[in-house]
Amino acid sequence: MTLKEYIDGISGADQQAIAAAKKRNDGLLKPLGSLGRLEDMAVKMAGITGKVINTAEKRCMIVMSADNGVVEEGVAGTPQEMTRNHTVNIAEGVSGVGVLAHYAGSDLKVVDIGIKGECPSELVYKRKIKNGTDNFAKGPAMTREEAEKGILTGIEMVRMCKEEGYELIGNGEMGIGNTSSTSACCMAFTGLSADEVVGKGGGLTDEGLAHKKEVITKALELNQPNPDDPIDVLCKVGGLDIAGLAGCYIGAAYYRLPIVIDGVISSVAALIANRLNPSCRDFMFASHASAEPAYKFIMKELGLDPILDMQMRLGEGTGCPLAFHIVGSACAMMRDMHTFAEESMDETYRIDIREDEK
Amino acid sequence: MTLKEYIDGISGADQQAIAAAKKRNDGLLKPLGSLGRLEDMAVKMAGITGKVINTAEKRCMIVMSADNGVVEEGVAGTPQEMTRNHTVNIAEGVSGVGVLAHYAGSDLKVVDIGIKGECPSELVYKRKIKNGTDNFAKGPAMTREEAEKGILTGIEMVRMCKEEGYELIGNGEMGIGNTSSTSACCMAFTGLSADEVVGKGGGLTDEGLAHKKEVITKALELNQPNPDDPIDVLCKVGGLDIAGLAGCYIGAAYYRLPIVIDGVISSVAALIANRLNPSCRDFMFASHASAEPAYKFIMKELGLDPILDMQMRLGEGTGCPLAFHIVGSACAMMRDMHTFAEESMDETYRIDIREDEK
Repeated sequence: MTLKEYIDGISGADQQAIAAAKKRNDGLLKPLGSLGRLEDMAVKMAGITGKVINTAEKRCMIVMSADNGVVEEGVAGTPQEMTRNHTVNIAEGVSGVGVLAHYAGSDLKVVDIGIKGECPSELVYKRKIKNGTDNFAKGPAMTREEAEKGILTGIEMVRMCKEEGYELIGNGEMGIGNTSSTSACCMAFTGLSADEVVGKGGGLTDEGLAHKKEVITKALELNQPNPDDPIDVLCKVGGLDIAGLAGCYIGAAYYRLPIVIDGVISSVAALIANRLNPSCRDFMFASHASAEPAYKFIMKELGLDPILDMQMRLGEGTGCPLAFHIVGSACAMMRDMHTFAEESMDETYRIDIREDEK
Repeated sequence: MTLKEYIDGISGADQQAIAAAKKRNDGLLKPLGSLGRLEDMAVKMAGITGKVINTAEKRCMIVMSADNGVVEEGVAGTPQEMTRNHTVNIAEGVSGVGVLAHYAGSDLKVVDIGIKGECPSELVYKRKIKNGTDNFAKGPAMTREEAEKGILTGIEMVRMCKEEGYELIGNGEMGIGNTSSTSACCMAFTGLSADEVVGKGGGLTDEGLAHKKEVITKALELNQPNPDDPIDVLCKVGGLDIAGLAGCYIGAAYYRLPIVIDGVISSVAALIANRLNPSCRDFMFASHASAEPAYKFIMKELGLDPILDMQMRLGEGTGCPLAFHIVGSACAMMRDMHTFAEESMDETYRIDIREDEK
C-alpha cells in the first residue's frame, strides 16, 4: 500500500460507540462528570475501538532510533555514537523506557530506522533507511522518498502490533541531534522563533545554545520548507526518527489502536500525522507536559492536554508507560464501576457537577 | 499511647538513605535529572523507608466515612442518608475508589468513624465515635476529646496496615456535608474568604452556594477556632472524617509508610497533621490537582506538587490509586534501571540537564 492509501483509509472516531459510552458513563455510580478526564479517556477509547467496554492491558512501546547529520555543526552536547550505543541499552530494557515499560506491563519494539553504522543488537528491528540524515545546514536532511519510507516503517510497526494483539501503544525515540531537527520542524510549523523554540537539548553551554539557534535559523532560510506540506518540512529539516514516529500515529489511526504521545519530539510527529489526516488525533492520548513552548502550541492544535506533570525530559518515550496506567484505569472505570440501576440507588446522588467550579 | 506520644514519636526523613539514593540515582543510565519528579519520588521513598531500593506494590486505601451535623442548615445538595448508603457501595468495591484501587492492586479499608445511624455492611470497620458531628452553625462540631479520638482511629488504621505488610497507602472520605467542614477548616487555617474557598460541593444552585457561604462564615464567627491550634479548628468546624484522615498522616509518619493525598479534603487533613508535627510532610505524596483555591495554598505550605491533572472531584480517595502507579514506577526506576558503571558506558552521556530550560 502507498502512504496516500493509508492516509485516505483513515476514518475517525466511532461516533455511535462514543454516544453509547457516554450513556453508560452517565449511569455510573458517581456524580455526573466527577471523574473528569478519566471519563473523557474512557469515552475516547470507545471511539477508537468501537466498543464501550475496553481493556488496554496488552501494551507495546515503539522506539525509533536514528542519527542526524546536523550534529556535524556542533549542535549536540553528546557524541554521535551514543545513538548506537544507547539504542542497545534501550533494546535490552535496562534504560528508562525499558524499565518503566516493563513496570507498566508493556513490551518494547526498538527500530533502527537510520542509525549511522551497524547497530550490533539482535533485539533491534533492522529498518535502516540511511546511515543518518544528511546535514540540513547544507541541504535537505533526506529526500521526500526517504521521508515517506520512514513514515511507512512506522505504519509497518503498528501493523505488527495490531497483528500481535496489542491494545495500547506508545512511542519514543533515541537520536543525538534530534532536538535540533525537532526544533526546526516546530519553527517551520508554528512560526515561532528560535528563541522561543530551541532549548539546550542534552547539556549545551550558553554559547552552544546560541550556536544551535543560529544553525537552525539559517537551515530554515536555506531549505525553505513549506509549512503547508508536512512531508516537505519533514524531509528538509526533520529526522528519520520523527518520520517513523509520524508513521506510528498514521498507523494507529488506520489500524484503530490508541496511541500515547511522549514529549515534544513525539508530539511534533503527531502534528505531522494530524496535518496529513485530521482524524489522527481521535486515536491519540497526551501523557506528560513538556516545558518546551512548541509542545503547548502542538497540543492546542491537536486539542489534547497532558495528564501528567513530571518535569521529565529524557525522551525514549518514558512518559508513555506512565500514562498507560492511567488509560488502563479509565478502561477499568467504564468496565468495572457499577451503575445506579445495578445498585437500585436513589439517583439524587447523581447530581450534575460538570459545570461547577471550573 | 496518647496522641501526644505519637506526635512526639515521629522522626523525619532518613537523611543518610536520601543521600545514598541520590548517589545511586545520579549513576543511573540517563542524563542527570532527566526523569524529573520520578527521581524526586524515588529519593523521597528512601527517606521514608531508610532503604535505597524499594517496592510499593502491597497497597491499601483507607476511606473514612462520617456525617456532618451542619447539613441541617441546607448546605448540601444530596440527602444525608447517602453517606451510609454509598459507604456500603465503597466497601463492596463497586464505586470509583474501589474500582481504581483494585486496578492499582490496592486493598481497601472502609471505616465508619461517625456515620449517622447503623451502617449495615460487614465489610466496614466499626469505629463510630458519634452519630455524625453536631451542627457547627450552632456550636462546636465535636469535643476536643472526640476529635483526638478520631485522629487516634486514623493512626490505628495505619498501624493495622503496617502490621499487615502494606508498603504504600492512600486515603479518602465519604460524608455528605464534608465540603462545608473542609471549607470552614481551610478558611480558619488560611485566612482566605468564603468567596475564595467555598465551592458548590455536590451540585448546589447559585442560591444554595450563597447560603452555604453565609452559614460557614457565621459558624466561624460563632466558634472562633484558633488557627494556631489545629485540633481546636478540627473540633469546632471540622468533621470526624477529617479527624480520621489527619490520623492517617500522623500514623504514616510514625510507622514510616508512604501516604498519598487525594483532593482538598484529604489535603486539609494533611495540613492538620503537618501542623502537629512538620516532619509529617516527609511521608506524603500529592496525587491530582484540585481546582479548589485552598488546595494550592495547602500544597504550598506542605511543599508538595500534584503529579496528575485529571479534573476529578469525586472524592472517596479516587486520586490516590492513580498516583500509586506513578510511585511504583519511581521505585522501579531506582531498582531496575542499570547504571553507567554496569554498562561500562562512556559517561559523556551523563550530562547534567537539571538546570536547563526550566
